[in-house]
Amino acid sequence: MTTYKVGFSPDGKEVEVEAGATLMEAAEKAEVYINSLCGGKGVCGKCKVQIKGDGIRADKHSIGFLSKEEIEKGFVLACQTKVEEDMEIVIPPESRLEEEQIMMGETVVDYSQPEKLLVPKVSADPMTLFDPIVQKIYLELKIPTLEDNIADIDRITRELRKKTEYQYFDVSLHCLKGLAAKLRDNDWKVTATISKRANVCRIMQIEAGNTTENHYGVAVDVGTTTVVAQLVDLKSGDVLGVAGSHNLQAHYGEDVISRIIYACGRERGLHPLHQAVIKNINSLIKTLVDENRIEPDDITAVVAAGNTTMSHLLLALTPCSIRLDPYVPTAKNFPQVPAREVGIEINPNGILETAPGVASYVGGDIVAGVLACGIADRPETRALIDVGTNGEIAIGNNEWLVCCSASAGPAFEGGGIRCGMRATRGAIEKVAIENDTLKYKTIGKAKPRGICGSGLIDCIYEMARNKIINGDGKFNLQAKEDRFVEYDGEPGFIVAFSAETETGENLIIAESDISNLIRSKGAVFAAIKSLVDYVGLAFDDIETFYVAGGFGNYLNIPKAIGIGLLPDIDPDRIKFVGNSCLMGARMALLSGHAMEKTTHIANGMTNIELSTYQPFMDEYVAAMFLPHTDRKLFPSVEY
Amino acid sequence: MTTYKVGFSPDGKEVEVEAGATLMEAAEKAEVYINSLCGGKGVCGKCKVQIKGDGIRADKHSIGFLSKEEIEKGFVLACQTKVEEDMEIVIPPESRLEEEQIMMGETVVDYSQPEKLLVPKVSADPMTLFDPIVQKIYLELKIPTLEDNIADIDRITRELRKKTEYQYFDVSLHCLKGLAAKLRDNDWKVTATISKRANVCRIMQIEAGNTTENHYGVAVDVGTTTVVAQLVDLKSGDVLGVAGSHNLQAHYGEDVISRIIYACGRERGLHPLHQAVIKNINSLIKTLVDENRIEPDDITAVVAAGNTTMSHLLLALTPCSIRLDPYVPTAKNFPQVPAREVGIEINPNGILETAPGVASYVGGDIVAGVLACGIADRPETRALIDVGTNGEIAIGNNEWLVCCSASAGPAFEGGGIRCGMRATRGAIEKVAIENDTLKYKTIGKAKPRGICGSGLIDCIYEMARNKIINGDGKFNLQAKEDRFVEYDGEPGFIVAFSAETETGENLIIAESDISNLIRSKGAVFAAIKSLVDYVGLAFDDIETFYVAGGFGNYLNIPKAIGIGLLPDIDPDRIKFVGNSCLMGARMALLSGHAMEKTTHIANGMTNIELSTYQPFMDEYVAAMFLPHTDRKLFPSVEY
Repeated sequence: MTTYKVGFSPDGKEVEVEAGATLMEAAEKAEVYINSLCGGKGVCGKCKVQIKGDGIRADKHSIGFLSKEEIEKGFVLACQTKVEEDMEIVIPPESRLEEEQIMMGETVVDYSQPEKLLVPKVSADPMTLFDPIVQKIYLELKIPTLEDNIADIDRITRELRKKTEYQYFDVSLHCLKGLAAKLRDNDWKVTATISKRANVCRIMQIEAGNTTENHYGVAVDVGTTTVVAQLVDLKSGDVLGVAGSHNLQAHYGEDVISRIIYACGRERGLHPLHQAVIKNINSLIKTLVDENRIEPDDITAVVAAGNTTMSHLLLALTPCSIRLDPYVPTAKNFPQVPAREVGIEINPNGILETAPGVASYVGGDIVAGVLACGIADRPETRALIDVGTNGEIAIGNNEWLVCCSASAGPAFEGGGIRCGMRATRGAIEKVAIENDTLKYKTIGKAKPRGICGSGLIDCIYEMARNKIINGDGKFNLQAKEDRFVEYDGEPGFIVAFSAETETGENLIIAESDISNLIRSKGAVFAAIKSLVDYVGLAFDDIETFYVAGGFGNYLNIPKAIGIGLLPDIDPDRIKFVGNSCLMGARMALLSGHAMEKTTHIANGMTNIELSTYQPFMDEYVAAMFLPHTDRKLFPSVEY
Repeated sequence: MTTYKVGFSPDGKEVEVEAGATLMEAAEKAEVYINSLCGGKGVCGKCKVQIKGDGIRADKHSIGFLSKEEIEKGFVLACQTKVEEDMEIVIPPESRLEEEQIMMGETVVDYSQPEKLLVPKVSADPMTLFDPIVQKIYLELKIPTLEDNIADIDRITRELRKKTEYQYFDVSLHCLKGLAAKLRDNDWKVTATISKRANVCRIMQIEAGNTTENHYGVAVDVGTTTVVAQLVDLKSGDVLGVAGSHNLQAHYGEDVISRIIYACGRERGLHPLHQAVIKNINSLIKTLVDENRIEPDDITAVVAAGNTTMSHLLLALTPCSIRLDPYVPTAKNFPQVPAREVGIEINPNGILETAPGVASYVGGDIVAGVLACGIADRPETRALIDVGTNGEIAIGNNEWLVCCSASAGPAFEGGGIRCGMRATRGAIEKVAIENDTLKYKTIGKAKPRGICGSGLIDCIYEMARNKIINGDGKFNLQAKEDRFVEYDGEPGFIVAFSAETETGENLIIAESDISNLIRSKGAVFAAIKSLVDYVGLAFDDIETFYVAGGFGNYLNIPKAIGIGLLPDIDPDRIKFVGNSCLMGARMALLSGHAMEKTTHIANGMTNIELSTYQPFMDEYVAAMFLPHTDRKLFPSVEY
């Protein structure tokens, strides 16, 4: 087989691939990450790259996505271009998955924000009991005598009975192998690692001597877009570090549906998606282990939370039926599995727990979020709104819980919006227009490269307040505005001029982008309104609205109300909680009670299927206006 | 490396081995089985073989074990002779492990004898409830709709809840893999295989369609000497077949102690012993599967029972500490393990349960025996006496259980007695001397090759009754007896003359053999007496004595009383139960209640350590006489 060399800049990486491989495949092999929304089908145009050298390289499939200038400069779509010679590829900023910024940026994503919720609201709140699902217990055993010659393992469980609340212990065969010598060679001093699940206490490993000093766990938020892992000290509960990366499954499709299609549309399609997320998790663990100078063997537990599709892919379960009427997953409660069984590289006896979900489109991420926000712990009714590609809403208290999910599109995560991007370095995260002057702030104070969710909300709000757009999202072209421009044959508005941007091009928000955002915010609001109506409450009956999602590390609540995304209540009753999923996963890792509660939450939550619920359709149509067609719902909003 | 060919007759097998391998190793490779008592140390002389061709081949290590005639005929010890050229080996009858006879003989070992105990004594006796530890349940599931779109696995457990007593099901990840397609491709008709342990019901596998017709289990008696397996239909409880073979571990030592020494005396010594018994079990399963024309995949459970050392070797646990003061095993309760984890070749999801033991020298075989005899089920006090290399005694009722173990030596299994042999074809199993005429009966009506346990008991009794020997076991040389002979420099008695035997040599029982048998019977009786005294009872307080052991398929109870092996009570109260261990294993396989009861029996049984119990020493000395030094204990015995 002929092979060719492909070099990538600015990464400075080079790989050899077989003739006929696509540039996307070559990039994957080189571990150079290129944007893709469509999973390599050549229909999103997000994977533009430049081939160094003279001449036009774009084929007929790609031409539609490229400007004339780009075509002349040798741009192509990476997913449509085959390697037939040695090549040097330049990846422009807008096509890069900015892994480094997430992982190394100072405060790019403020993962610690939800911490404050950990303060117990009631003393001895079971939610916050420190009782890790895996514990190490050091044992100094009495030396056997003829009067006390019980079996070695019984000597261990007799001592564990004194030191734990358990009477019965499940023992794996591998713990018994070599145990006799381990005890006798180490003066009868050993450390037992035990794990708890559903009232069964299992002895996972028995180590020589006292190893309790070194015991760690990892909480993982397996998001469709990003995977974030926290290293936790299981002795103290302290968070030792956080690392995040883009979900490598993005190569096979940007959103949940395109990944399901990839997994189910071909033989062994599931395998690369499963491998991708395992690779993500292993590389995050490696980063955390190296940073903290610990051994992977000292990590004995991983608790992962993600939406139902992500959980299926994590465990290598086929997600196919999730997207087909009647939307049935293989499982919503997942077994505890040996971490090595799915390829996670921690202690060979370590375990993986996966947070249970409620239904195909309300997953373990929401359950973890409800746990983290303490919604199921208190008599006051509270709500969690997680805005992502799907907007998921959960409402309830310690007696009941309901939830729903609405397809909102990825607009607030920067998807489907031409200037949209995720909340990484260079994203405009705040926008204000005062006295006809537009000001913005970017993440990392970098040159703007795009606009993230919080910036887009600010934009729409500020344009509406300043009458640059009307309630229907169309530009008020009568407005005196030097930022108006025609863009792809439709009216647009320049948020950042080419002189200021990293790409050297105007950052423009066009009318169709605004329509997309209005559809997204309409879907989310309609879902909230439908669910509140469904349980016979009014917004004022809900003590607190917790808002989670990939907006960035910042969300201007009044402006989110101002565009009609969130209900028009006292903004102090709305709290942005950032990554509540990760926090819930960590709580489950640190408390067997919390882990058990995830099952109670998942099993006790009633899912309202909005796709067949007529009131939701009506609410959706009514919400397609800024702030809403029914102005009485937004009395405080003035523009 | 130079290799040589070694042929074995009468087996007709040939192998190639490296120069320097022993003939014992070559035989092992050829799957030709040669006797060995010492584990290949050259100290028992049981592995005599003849090298074809002219000349003396015996080396100085072997000469002491061979007669002058044997040396001249080219006999050697297989374990001491290295292969340095191509060789043809003849294995004489007395050196053969007679595998074929056990496996294929008509009624050589009467495995079905204990069956009658299965008849329930009280209706709905939980012991006899038919409730196999692994069950297949056929499910026709409702097709999901939008109104009923629970997860696939929840649809299965919902149906299982209706069809079983369980509410909660533990599911292995592998059951979830591919489940969505399995359900949808098979019209939502599947068969779930569930296993029960300690109130947890686990779904082991989910198969397409209805597979309940084919469901089997295997009960295994892992004896030190023989391994016997029964194939059981888990639908009906019927026994479909029995197969037995010599324990292949015999290559590494004949008794438990020499195997422990082998396992612990060298690096990786455990491995070949573990592999040997697994090979035994797999070959028995293959025989049973082939005979019954079923698939190994349709076997989902194996229940094994053996002494503590055998259980450790089965599970590849080091047995070293068992033989060292204070006699501590690694475990006495063993985990349920995936059968494939130890290499047993049944369904890849199948399980292995190992009967729990009481202490290092009272193992799962006794616990299974107590279960089989129903000792723990009834208010009447009953006893089980298992006579083997260790004599193990258990006494009790439904309120208490005590047990002990005494080192009896292998005499009753034919070991340590020059003419002794196991209860296989050609063994003399009955002996009577009437009117100065000795009559005997052999197993399989073959020419006599040796005397098995029941024959030896008969012999001693008949010789004592006819005053051929005195109460101290010495020959009464004043007796008029043409069978007296000198043998190895001591007085002997010809049981079968050379003209009648297969080997063409006299079958002689010598004075030292009789001493061995008296020591063995003395140890067993002393153990029974000590234990009965310990619990403050008399023999008459014990309703029934069950006797198990490797005597053969026949035990003359009055003669066993007559030599002082069993207490002098009404012989009708003594029942020979044959292989109670195998029966107990089968009961545990067929009833989750019985399986659980093994744990209750094991945990509830008090072990009396005789090695440090002075009354036992006194009883032992007192019992070294025929029938006993205290004639009052044997009033009915007259000679």
